[in-house]
Amino acid sequence: MASPTVKLNSGYDMPLVGFGLWKVPNDTCADQVYAAVKAGYRLFDGAADYGNEKEVGEGLARAIKDGLVKREELFIVSKLWNTYHDADKVESIARKQLADLQIDYFDLYLIHFPVALKYVDPAEAYPPGWNHPATGKPEFSNATIQETWAAMESLVDKKLARSIGISNFSVQLIMDLLRYARIPPATLQIEHHPYLQQKKLVEFVQKQGIVITAYSSFGNQGFLELDMEAARNVPLLFDVDVIKAAAAKHGKTPAQVLLRWATQRGIAVIPKSSNPKRLAENLDVTGWDLDDSEIEAINALDKGIRFNDPLNYGMYIPIFA
Amino acid sequence: MASPTVKLNSGYDMPLVGFGLWKVPNDTCADQVYAAVKAGYRLFDGAADYGNEKEVGEGLARAIKDGLVKREELFIVSKLWNTYHDADKVESIARKQLADLQIDYFDLYLIHFPVALKYVDPAEAYPPGWNHPATGKPEFSNATIQETWAAMESLVDKKLARSIGISNFSVQLIMDLLRYARIPPATLQIEHHPYLQQKKLVEFVQKQGIVITAYSSFGNQGFLELDMEAARNVPLLFDVDVIKAAAAKHGKTPAQVLLRWATQRGIAVIPKSSNPKRLAENLDVTGWDLDDSEIEAINALDKGIRFNDPLNYGMYIPIFA
Repeated sequence: MASPTVKLNSGYDMPLVGFGLWKVPNDTCADQVYAAVKAGYRLFDGAADYGNEKEVGEGLARAIKDGLVKREELFIVSKLWNTYHDADKVESIARKQLADLQIDYFDLYLIHFPVALKYVDPAEAYPPGWNHPATGKPEFSNATIQETWAAMESLVDKKLARSIGISNFSVQLIMDLLRYARIPPATLQIEHHPYLQQKKLVEFVQKQGIVITAYSSFGNQGFLELDMEAARNVPLLFDVDVIKAAAAKHGKTPAQVLLRWATQRGIAVIPKSSNPKRLAENLDVTGWDLDDSEIEAINALDKGIRFNDPLNYGMYIPIFA
Repeated sequence: MASPTVKLNSGYDMPLVGFGLWKVPNDTCADQVYAAVKAGYRLFDGAADYGNEKEVGEGLARAIKDGLVKREELFIVSKLWNTYHDADKVESIARKQLADLQIDYFDLYLIHFPVALKYVDPAEAYPPGWNHPATGKPEFSNATIQETWAAMESLVDKKLARSIGISNFSVQLIMDLLRYARIPPATLQIEHHPYLQQKKLVEFVQKQGIVITAYSSFGNQGFLELDMEAARNVPLLFDVDVIKAAAAKHGKTPAQVLLRWATQRGIAVIPKSSNPKRLAENLDVTGWDLDDSEIEAINALDKGIRFNDPLNYGMYIPIFA
């Protein structure tokens, strides 16, 4: 079972289904990555901020060494953390991340958030998170998005990244970025599930030739683990009638319905699972179709509820306002 | 009756209540402006796009000539239209607008929308609106917001504008602007009424020392004139119980309650009226207070419904997504 791919504006093909590395624990990460390669995953979506890139690198290196996969068959995604937006910090942190991952180029490297924080030396704290180690709160850098994007473009020039993109950007900033970008973003990664569909954003971005990758496809489920209040106030998507009904009709799981609802509309997904059965199921979300009426019923679940907002983590950075 | 003022980060004082010039008809505009000055209005909020700056200038010049007011007592606001975002076009159009207004500086000059459209020569069409005269649809310029903002800053250097600001910007773009701005925006003008409160945006912007000016304080009322469908789907704010009740209790009109709800929280307002009684009433929205419980009841009316969206005018520019 392999995922079909989507052609990026950079000319490269990206798998439509990948394995998301957020919250994958360090102690099991290398084995999970290895198992995911074995199950057929080729895209791995990580980030400096996830704090597990060394373990991801170990798992991938082992899979390559064991002959499960070749480097060129993998599509490795990572992200530039907020504290490295200054133009003179981008390449050095990218090189550190590549070293952690035991690779020499990213298939795709994203600006994680449109938020420039003051540089924190990796020797002092890595990954440093949102709060500056010296003050215990976010400290802002004066790096502009244009400055950071130019540094991202340099990574392409230096063949450290094949494609570059953005995450958590909204339309006004994307419109501005498209004015000065020499290399347009290949993808935009956003929170996207039936409770937060962002239809206007998705449509606009797709019209620009930029592929959307959905994170948190299962909605509140992933945020219940974080004990987030907003996540407790709505039913689990797996328990919602229209999703259960579509699952029953197609002989799939609710998780597969949620993933297919995205991929059927050209949106890439990056679920994770530590369960071998679900790992395989999550990859099986492209060879069958939901009916139009099912898509519409799921579209009707939109509530505009966002979980992955810095405000929900106690950071006063209202980037989605 | 004069409006109290609010101190801008530029050091200038801005009246908290002004007269909004959008949709003021050309044939009555000069007289309406003259009457507004006579009624005590000192702030006039215009824009190239409103297509009536010559008439505004006539009304103001007459009021000054008749000794009703001095130029230095007025606070004249205008806006840079989307088609003049290119750095080399900002000063020339600002000078044209100043000439139309018969003044030699703006008290405040705003970027009207974070949307850079291709230049249209005023000799060809003025104001040109959203659609390019050659193609009948929006044509985008490659001007970045940074480029346009630098040109706005030059207007301050050249004393063509005392303060500069922005309109219809959301947080991501404002955060980026604050990185490169040599002169920070003095104000942000946004659609703001009980159906669209934008609380997170308002709080964030105010914390940056930027004053919020509300437009369309009466909500859907101003858009019913434009026969906008979204405006017909909610009750007129003047007819909403909590607003009528507060009006009755304080011996004010629902319009005054809506304006006071903003000014009491430090938000400037720019209503318009062609009715002499309402003209006076709209200025009387600062010397009395709504109760906390009334403010809360009005806060509870938020529906996140935006009327002044390019999408609602048939322009595919989803800047608020």
